[in-house]
Amino acid sequence: MRVYLAGPDVFLPDPLARAARLKAACAERGLVGVFPLDALPQGDPPAWASLPEALRIARRNEAHIASCDVLVANLSPLRGPSADVGTVFEVGFMRALGRPVFGWSNDARPFAERTRAFCGVMGEVDAAGLLIEDFGLADNLMIDGAIVASGGVFLCGDSRDWQDLSAFEACLDAMKRG
Amino acid sequence: MRVYLAGPDVFLPDPLARAARLKAACAERGLVGVFPLDALPQGDPPAWASLPEALRIARRNEAHIASCDVLVANLSPLRGPSADVGTVFEVGFMRALGRPVFGWSNDARPFAERTRAFCGVMGEVDAAGLLIEDFGLADNLMIDGAIVASGGVFLCGDSRDWQDLSAFEACLDAMKRG
Repeated sequence: MRVYLAGPDVFLPDPLARAARLKAACAERGLVGVFPLDALPQGDPPAWASLPEALRIARRNEAHIASCDVLVANLSPLRGPSADVGTVFEVGFMRALGRPVFGWSNDARPFAERTRAFCGVMGEVDAAGLLIEDFGLADNLMIDGAIVASGGVFLCGDSRDWQDLSAFEACLDAMKRG
Repeated sequence: MRVYLAGPDVFLPDPLARAARLKAACAERGLVGVFPLDALPQGDPPAWASLPEALRIARRNEAHIASCDVLVANLSPLRGPSADVGTVFEVGFMRALGRPVFGWSNDARPFAERTRAFCGVMGEVDAAGLLIEDFGLADNLMIDGAIVASGGVFLCGDSRDWQDLSAFEACLDAMKRG
């Protein structure tokens, strides 16, 4: 089973070492991890040669996701109360393909609590008057909702440590149990 | 043509008034705007009755997107350097369906500039050592890449005013021109 490893892990100081750790955890469970920085098995289509690098990367990641059976997303908050938007894009993409999506995070605070802390408010709205979503979920309801509807789980530890992979490994174990 | 109106507009103080403004701009152009808070034409499927409200909303929005021909996303930054994650989920969802995605924002600064300002750094990484994506795009490359690949455009004004719909209307005009 091919598992797409979505996450801001590509931004970590040594992304290839990170990829190796994630893939090793997959391999221990008989899964094949696919990391966003991997080359496509068949190489890039010739038509992409004229695209700017960033757009080639985007096409490649879409192709990786489409080639996988399941997606596991690192949804730890990045630069704000929510998960990395590139990762969340990929969660939505896989959800529309109708395949299972799993999520993990190293911040166990509910989304509303993180958002209020970020905005420095206690009530239902932020300083600009925009509502603070508060359904007791781990992040925006589209994310939690898609994971549940797809048959996956969203597991959160609370180490707030990018190097901690225990919630990721718990996702893989949940996936194996089916 | 049915247009899904993705965005954090649902969090604005009077979301129904906002929906009416967005839909009126669509109607002026012969388009049918579909807002996330709309009921489904056929109502919710009976199977959703047992779901928590947040998960029903998520399912409903997925159904709305699947019923639309095109998606227009308000990608103005929300509580951090990037767009609202719920909106970005929906961009990824529509992209996987293979239909056009348009984006607009009222903050014209490049993504890297917004991220550096948010993190309070000048260089290539943030204080935690994570890379700052810098391809000269408007947001994370999955978002910009998907919009371009889908045949849409990502148009940015710089008013930083939630009430300014000029970039949204420019998207509708671009859509009409095809």
